Order: sequence, then C-alpha cells, then structure tokens
Amino acid sequence: MNKSRLEAFSDGVLAIIITIMVLELKVPHGSSLSALKPLVPVFMSYLLSFVYVGIYWNNHHHMMQMVKKVNGKVLWANLHLLFWLSLFPFATAWMGENHYDTWPVVIYGCIMLMAATAYFILESTLKKLHGPDSEFANTFGTSLKDTVSCLLYVIAIGGSFISSWIGIVCYILVAIIWFIPERRVEKKIA
Amino acid sequence: MNKSRLEAFSDGVLAIIITIMVLELKVPHGSSLSALKPLVPVFMSYLLSFVYVGIYWNNHHHMMQMVKKVNGKVLWANLHLLFWLSLFPFATAWMGENHYDTWPVVIYGCIMLMAATAYFILESTLKKLHGPDSEFANTFGTSLKDTVSCLLYVIAIGGSFISSWIGIVCYILVAIIWFIPERRVEKKIA
Amino acid sequence: MNKSRLEAFSDGVLAIIITIMVLELKVPHGSSLSALKPLVPVFMSYLLSFVYVGIYWNNHHHMMQMVKKVNGKVLWANLHLLFWLSLFPFATAWMGENHYDTWPVVIYGCIMLMAATAYFILESTLKKLHGPDSEFANTFGTSLKDTVSCLLYVIAIGGSFISSWIGIVCYILVAIIWFIPERRVEKKIA
Amino acid sequence: MNKSRLEAFSDGVLAIIITIMVLELKVPHGSSLSALKPLVPVFMSYLLSFVYVGIYWNNHHHMMQMVKKVNGKVLWANLHLLFWLSLFPFATAWMGENHYDTWPVVIYGCIMLMAATAYFILESTLKKLHGPDSEFANTFGTSLKDTVSCLLYVIAIGGSFISSWIGIVCYILVAIIWFIPERRVEKKIA
Repeated sequence: MNKSRLEAFSDGVLAIIITIMVLELKVPHGSSLSALKPLVPVFMSYLLSFVYVGIYWNNHHHMMQMVKKVNGKVLWANLHLLFWLSLFPFATAWMGENHYDTWPVVIYGCIMLMAATAYFILESTLKKLHGPDSEFANTFGTSLKDTVSCLLYVIAIGGSFISSWIGIVCYILVAIIWFIPERRVEKKIA
Repeated sequence: MNKSRLEAFSDGVLAIIITIMVLELKVPHGSSLSALKPLVPVFMSYLLSFVYVGIYWNNHHHMMQMVKKVNGKVLWANLHLLFWLSLFPFATAWMGENHYDTWPVVIYGCIMLMAATAYFILESTLKKLHGPDSEFANTFGTSLKDTVSCLLYVIAIGGSFISSWIGIVCYILVAIIWFIPERRVEKKIA
Repeated sequence: MNKSRLEAFSDGVLAIIITIMVLELKVPHGSSLSALKPLVPVFMSYLLSFVYVGIYWNNHHHMMQMVKKVNGKVLWANLHLLFWLSLFPFATAWMGENHYDTWPVVIYGCIMLMAATAYFILESTLKKLHGPDSEFANTFGTSLKDTVSCLLYVIAIGGSFISSWIGIVCYILVAIIWFIPERRVEKKIA
Repeated sequence: MNKSRLEAFSDGVLAIIITIMVLELKVPHGSSLSALKPLVPVFMSYLLSFVYVGIYWNNHHHMMQMVKKVNGKVLWANLHLLFWLSLFPFATAWMGENHYDTWPVVIYGCIMLMAATAYFILESTLKKLHGPDSEFANTFGTSLKDTVSCLLYVIAIGGSFISSWIGIVCYILVAIIWFIPERRVEKKIA
C-alpha cells in the first residue's frame, strides 16, 4: 500500500487546522491600536498552537520518510492522530478568549496529551508493521523527549488547578524541547 | 488519463470537510467546565461524522489503488460522491445542535444513504471501465457490507420516526461494520 | 518548469472553494422539516455552483494533461482564473439568500463570464507557449462550446433585468453543455 | 530529505489563506446594487492581498525548483514564512473594513515586512545548505527587488502616519515590481 496519499491527506488536514486557528483572531470593529489589545491573549495562544502544529507536521514528515509500507491499521492510527489535532483550534480559541482561565488551560493540556498519545500509537503501529529489526524500529526507539513531554503535560494539567501559569510554562517547555528537529532521522538519511 | 489529480482533489475536499465540521464546536463564552456541557451532543455527532469521513477516505484510498485508468464519467461519479459528502458538516451540525431530534436524524440518514449510493455508482463506473474480467472487478465484487449498511440506513430513516435512538444505533452499527478495512484489497496487494 | 505544483495549488483552491460554498447553508435553529424550507433557494444555488466548479475542475484537469511546460505567464493566467473562481462562494450565497433577485443574478453572471474569459486567456497563453503546431494547440482549437456559453452568459446578464428566470435558465443551459466531458482530449490520449 | 511534502504543505496553506480572505466579503442583506457599495474597500484590499499571496506562491514555486535538498532548519524557516502569511487574512480584513485608516494600514505593512523578512531568511537558509558555489546560491544572489520592496514597506509604515495613501501607493508599487516573474530562474531552467 502506498504512503503518498496518507501524507497528502495529513498535509491537507494540518494545513487547514493551522489556517482555521487564525480565524479566531476576529477582526476588531475599531481602527485604533487599542482595538487590537483584547486580541493579544488570543494571538499568543494562536502562536503557541501554530508552533505545536508545526512540530507535529515536522515530526510526521520525518517519521513518514522512513516508512516503507502502510496498512489499514496505520491509516486509522493516523486518522486518530488527526482527530485530536482537529480539536486544537477549539482548545486554542477557548483558552485565548478566556485569558488562560483554569479549565480552558486544563482542557488544552488534555487535548495535547491525547494528540501525543495518538502520535505514540501511530509510531508503535508503524514499528510493528516494519518489524523489530527494521531501520524504522531502530531509528524511532524509546525517546526521552516523549517521556518528558508526557510528564510535562501531566504536570500542566494538575498544576493548572493551582495556577494557570504552571500549565502555560509547561506547554512552552514542551514546545521548546520539540522545536529541535529529529536529528536521529537526519543523520540516518544523510 | 491520470488518476493522481482525482486522488489529490478528493483528498483536499475530504480534508476540508473533516476540518469544517469541527467549526460547529462553537467556542463557549464561559470558562467553567459546565460551559462545555451544551457542546457534548455536538461533539458526539462530530465524532460520528469524523469516523464516517475516515471510512470514506480509507475505502476511497483502497479502491483507487486498484484503479488503472479513469475517464470523464469517473470524474463526475467522484464529484457526485463529494457533493453528498460535502453536506455532512451541515447534517452533523443540525443533528448535534438539536439534540438528535427526529427530522435532523432522518435527514442525516438520507445524506448518508445518498453518499453510499454515490460510492456504489463510482465503484460501478470504475468496474465498467476496467471490464468484467479485470482485477478491479474481481476485487470489488458484490459485498455483503454494502447491502447491510444500506439496509441499516433505511431502518434508521424509518425507525427515527418512532425513536431517534433507532437511527443513532443504526448509524453506529454502520460505522462499526465499515471500521474494519477492506481486507480483500490488502490481500490482493500483498 | 514543472506543472505539478500548479495542478496541486489549483486543486487545493478549487477544493476549498467547493467546500466553503456549503458553509452558506447555515444550520437552522428549529428541528422541524419546515426549518429547512428557507434553505431551499440557497441549496439550489449551491448545487448549481458545485456543478460549475466541477466543470472547471474537469476541464482544467483535461487541459493540464496535454500541457508539456509552463512559464511565469501561465502561473499568473492560472491565478487570474482562480481569482474569479474564488468569488463564486460570495456570488452563490448572495443569489441564494435573495431568492434570485435581479442584481444578484446579474452579478453571478458577470463573475461566471469573467471566469470563462480567464479560462480562455489561460488556454491562449498555453497555446502560445506550446506553439501553433503543437499537439496542445491542435487539441484545443476554436470551440463552439466557448462561443455558445459566452453568448448565454451575455443573454443571462441582459435578460435578468426583464426576469431573473432568463438568467437562471441560461446558467443551467451552460452547465448542461459543459457537463459533457472534453471528448477531444480523451480521444487524443486514448 | 524530500522537498515534495514541504511544497505540498505550503501549497495547502497558501490555497487556504487565499480562500479564507474571500470570506471577509460578507454577503450583504439587501439585493440592490447599492448593497454592494460598502464592500468596495473590502474587495480592493482582498484584490491587493490576493496578488501578494500570488506573488509569494510564484516566487516560492520558482525558488523550490532550484532546491536540491532540505533539512530541519529549512522546514522551520518555511513554517515561519507561513506564519506571517497566515496573518494576511486578518490584516486584509481589518484594513478593508476600516476604510484604510492609519493603524490598519500600518499593521498591514508590518505583516508584509515580516513576511518579506521571513522569505529572506528562508532563502538564506537554503543558500547556506546548498553552499556558496551551488547553482542555487548563484541564481538567488543579492536582489535589487528585495532591497527596494523592504524600503517601500518602511516608507509605507512611516508615511501612513501622514496619510494612509502613502502606504497604499507603496503596497501597490511593491506588488507591481514583484509581479514580473523571476526571469533569473526561468533562464537557468530553460
């Protein structure tokens, strides 16, 4: 089975998610600079989520490069990932419009955690398909990054009940540790 | 004639349909957890339709892999399918926002039935083009799944006038029986 | 220069145009069948425009198959076509929501005429690039269809000031004469 | 690493940006020609931004043709460009709906300047990756166009505080000087 349509479909969905999020930046009625002020928190949450979608796209891109074959299970594992990513615009807007209130920050973290889990399931499904001795399984071994980011999400979700800032700092930290591209793959390919 | 643009265009439309549906999850004004409560039925109908679009994408993907050629009739049969799929966001939102009232559930079923019919027409058009002895025609023979799901749609449409739950249960059943990928194709390709 | 990105970009824009049009089918508040009644004219104009976008996509698909090379002028001629097509959702919604009143029907026709002109310019630019003796220039000679549909648009625009029905009938006629795929190309390719 | 997905993703985002901008042309309630009058400034800003996105797509297309390889840095430089481009619909709508008032025109210019900077960073990243003696580095040398358009953006941003017209004229000038395709590349390829 061919992986190119899976890539094309994922690219399409991710491209739309990224662009739909910007629709939450509602055009203000006034034309003064101060009319933009209420948009600042919405803009910040847009920026954060844009980086997240960028990270997912980059990692998906890297991972798919090593993929030799796909099957029905992989298609569904990929759709499962896209489902959680499709909830980003909602979570982003809710968080931004409510000035990073407790529950919106918690829900944002839950959706992030679910997306990370879905990504992990996709990786595992691909590993199983390619076999334990494949180049794919060797490249995408147990990653410290995965563990740390999941831990950070859990801290974010719990900590937000004390202060939303704990959650936000955790989300920024996760973005930073993933910002660095998958050098493992680049080395293999080079 | 080349099938790759037909695939690319269908991928594009399906990716947008899936992402447009999520726009119906309107961001609530409050920031409490209870503010999400009215969204639960809308979310459930989103989830159901997401699975449906996923099924259509998967089956379309499987079918197109066996396709050797396309012609003008195939292009239109495909557009006809996309037309009915493009009505999913409307039907999904109407059903979710009205808490699964009779008519929205009935109309949802009608659109599902039309999409299934359109898919059947596309399959038949491709079969005719490839000839009765082609690998394509042999792979996509008469399927029990097609018959059962059409029957379930009809029961759903009729039964919804007694209780919406009959409709909803039928829609979930159809989703379940199609969730299993087309093993026929995977075998052939493997 | 490579034509595949031009195709991919056009497919993307057309896929989004087709799906954005459906957003004008605003989800009604009531759940009775009569709540759908005010949507009927909007739905009819959606159906008409869906067929039009389908025709443009089909013809674009057919034309690009014969294309051997593209240059900067072709890219802009193609963007010019996409510009007019991008106004379809607006014209479609305005016409549908105003129950086919005079001016909306006239403006719809003007945008259709501009799109047809843009398509003609794209074809001519491609013909010039491929040379008068190329297979491309031979396949896409002077077409009766082009002339008739432009004439019908002009009749539609003028006639709508007498009765909107003249316009609507003309638009349906144009859709019918273009529905038949470009047999010229299919023969050449076969 | 493969450049085709980077192209596909960029095409997707640009296609959606272009089409989302048109959504700001809100369908008027009346059906008279005068109901369209308040849309004229919105339409003009849509037209301007459409040309800008077209220019970016064309230049991106030209640049990517010379690209032999991409790495993680290029993916992020490209996402950075897409981020600023994703703010075009917002800036366009704000400017159009406020009849080219000072601040909207200034912000529009700032976003244009940031997008131009992001494009420059992407070009530099690609140059560095391909090496100083590569065909890529030779083709995309120091360009007068880049300098002039950046200068014009700065004049536009400053001048808008005197009169918005200075800004608008500058934006139109930039569009005109970039409208001419990258002959450098076309020569190389031919």
